[in-house]
Amino acid sequence: MNKLQAYASLTYQRCDQLAQLSQNPSCMDRRYLTKEHKSANLQVAQWMQQAGMSVWQDEAGNQWGALQSTILGAPTLVIGSHLDTVPNGGKYDGILGVLLPIALLQYLHDTMQTLPFNVQIVGFGDEEGTRFGATLLGSHAVAGSWQEKWAELKDNEGIALEQAMEEFGLDINKLKHSKREDIDAFIEVHIEQGPVLEALDLPVGIVSAIAGARRFKCVLTGMAGHAGTVPMTMRQDALAGAAEMILAIEALALNHQVVATVGKLTCLSGATNVISGKTEFSIDIRSDNDEQRNTAFTDIEQKIQQIAKQRKLNLQITQTHAANAVQCNNDLQTQLSQAINKYGIKSHTLSSGAGHDTMAMANICPVAMLFMRCEKGISHHPAEAIFSRDIEITMEVLLNFLNDYSR
Amino acid sequence: MNKLQAYASLTYQRCDQLAQLSQNPSCMDRRYLTKEHKSANLQVAQWMQQAGMSVWQDEAGNQWGALQSTILGAPTLVIGSHLDTVPNGGKYDGILGVLLPIALLQYLHDTMQTLPFNVQIVGFGDEEGTRFGATLLGSHAVAGSWQEKWAELKDNEGIALEQAMEEFGLDINKLKHSKREDIDAFIEVHIEQGPVLEALDLPVGIVSAIAGARRFKCVLTGMAGHAGTVPMTMRQDALAGAAEMILAIEALALNHQVVATVGKLTCLSGATNVISGKTEFSIDIRSDNDEQRNTAFTDIEQKIQQIAKQRKLNLQITQTHAANAVQCNNDLQTQLSQAINKYGIKSHTLSSGAGHDTMAMANICPVAMLFMRCEKGISHHPAEAIFSRDIEITMEVLLNFLNDYSR
Repeated sequence: MNKLQAYASLTYQRCDQLAQLSQNPSCMDRRYLTKEHKSANLQVAQWMQQAGMSVWQDEAGNQWGALQSTILGAPTLVIGSHLDTVPNGGKYDGILGVLLPIALLQYLHDTMQTLPFNVQIVGFGDEEGTRFGATLLGSHAVAGSWQEKWAELKDNEGIALEQAMEEFGLDINKLKHSKREDIDAFIEVHIEQGPVLEALDLPVGIVSAIAGARRFKCVLTGMAGHAGTVPMTMRQDALAGAAEMILAIEALALNHQVVATVGKLTCLSGATNVISGKTEFSIDIRSDNDEQRNTAFTDIEQKIQQIAKQRKLNLQITQTHAANAVQCNNDLQTQLSQAINKYGIKSHTLSSGAGHDTMAMANICPVAMLFMRCEKGISHHPAEAIFSRDIEITMEVLLNFLNDYSR
Repeated sequence: MNKLQAYASLTYQRCDQLAQLSQNPSCMDRRYLTKEHKSANLQVAQWMQQAGMSVWQDEAGNQWGALQSTILGAPTLVIGSHLDTVPNGGKYDGILGVLLPIALLQYLHDTMQTLPFNVQIVGFGDEEGTRFGATLLGSHAVAGSWQEKWAELKDNEGIALEQAMEEFGLDINKLKHSKREDIDAFIEVHIEQGPVLEALDLPVGIVSAIAGARRFKCVLTGMAGHAGTVPMTMRQDALAGAAEMILAIEALALNHQVVATVGKLTCLSGATNVISGKTEFSIDIRSDNDEQRNTAFTDIEQKIQQIAKQRKLNLQITQTHAANAVQCNNDLQTQLSQAINKYGIKSHTLSSGAGHDTMAMANICPVAMLFMRCEKGISHHPAEAIFSRDIEITMEVLLNFLNDYSR
């Protein structure tokens, strides 16, 4: 039996165990500052302590554990992810990135191995943003990029974030104390939430960058008309126009090597026997290269306006969201790559299309991410699944990384 | 002042008045078995009574009025159209064909003129099919061509037709009693919903035939996924698939010289940052040549199934409506032609690209239609407009027809 197999099994079981802490009895749902969040922190703190760590909860509700090095003035490496979930979510998104390093430190503890630097593990309280709308609340507090206006954000039941903090036992006036300035580097382990590693038959991969995203709302206006009496050549069909635009967006995304998605379309007028007069749709466009993403959008905009003109439609485009890409640290990527190669498998680098706590942590220190394969790329869904064996491999890789870590 | 001018004005005003009865405060929208349908029936019944008619609502929710002849065993001529509208529709489509003959009978009543046959006026409850998908529900009930399976059709809110009937105060088990077998002929007055009469500068025209139509509901299933993490080439995007199908349908309709419309599309799963997993859309395909229409659909079906296959999507196509082209009765056309000539204008004959209640009524009696000019051929749109003067002319023509009517 491999030395880490038992610790991988333990992690797998703990993911199941933590999944019991849900605010909804029929699905996985654990949001920021709920009593289930508190229970999860307590449980995680207990596991941290078993691994020989000292523990504390910071002023934003993030759970921390520290394994202090015996070397005076040693640097501090932080490993972590988030403990909250989306409604009807899975057991591994975020959580695995907290429980996996805890079990690895348990192994070091059990085998009486020490490291020449401090290791801290963090379980962020909010990454998904499903309770108050704004995302990465936990890691923004740690990175000092928390915005004061968030205090007034309200959940679905009208409870303000400030009040929820108070009910949780936190004082929002002390939140600034959760900011950290002593972190040497931040590493996040996370399921890929995409199908790339599975397709390559690889258990882990290295994240090069986290894609930036721009989102747009498009409103397309034509002329409604009778489906039987207006000749095909005389139509101003807003839905047919949107269809041509969706295909153009898809083709241009491929050409520009970005991802672009029309995920939502609503016929604002139209019926089975009525030519669509007005259609609204969204565009979400992402790339780890901001310039490439912006160029792609410029081309998309030009093309879809041209389609609108040819079809005598009016197209209004409004940007609703914009965030630039975050690059992972090259040196940390190299060290992770060596750790993977040392394990004996190919090191593959991919970008992250989804946002992560690492984006906020990049404000205060060099960052890197390890992606783990997940079944069919499914995430934010109860069907989220991983191999227990992949946990073991990732632990081996992370152990190699820790053993050779230098800055 | 012409004898019918006041009755034309009354009709014009009543169209405005009935347009107030909408389930959507911001547009014209009155669907089958809604409380606005009930209010419309009550209002129309009141106007029928003012014209000296006895009134009743049949078991399908159609509103009837009867002016009984004093001649025993006299034949019964039915004149009518529908009282429902499409969402964001106009004030005249269908409605004018009910209110115009009521005002004409009001004129006969006011001037104490009688006819040697019974005249009944009907306001059908559903012609557009915008609530339950299947069309001509009202006239099919009268024609005895109602299909039992329609009881299970559901509206957008999941309310079954059967339940909606109950809530309206109808018993679906008694629906068969709305079938009529005593109708001598059916005449429908309707706006053209096309640009032909306007181009010819003619207020009225005679319909030779009504194009057949087939309608389909298409459900396209792919795989929902994260908009940031699934590469463009690995997607099973139901909305992008639907977009490609919509363009293929448009192109094939042009090739086959039929009209085909995707008027409605709903994303059943999907959000701005989620790849569409399931999309539903309608197809409406029409021609006055049944063979040509069927050949076009066969090609469309083959093409869109091929697109589904290429994109690894599952496509389910269900026919929701099928009607062959209907020929109007030659003798009635001749009588209408004489009535128009008697008024002093040219009689023009054209075919109807739109479906009408007349199609269902053709199952039980000889039928004919009078088309009225409408502005720019616009229909199913708030901009639907007619001349008040055209109402007067059409009433004169219809009066001539009634005065000379023989079978």
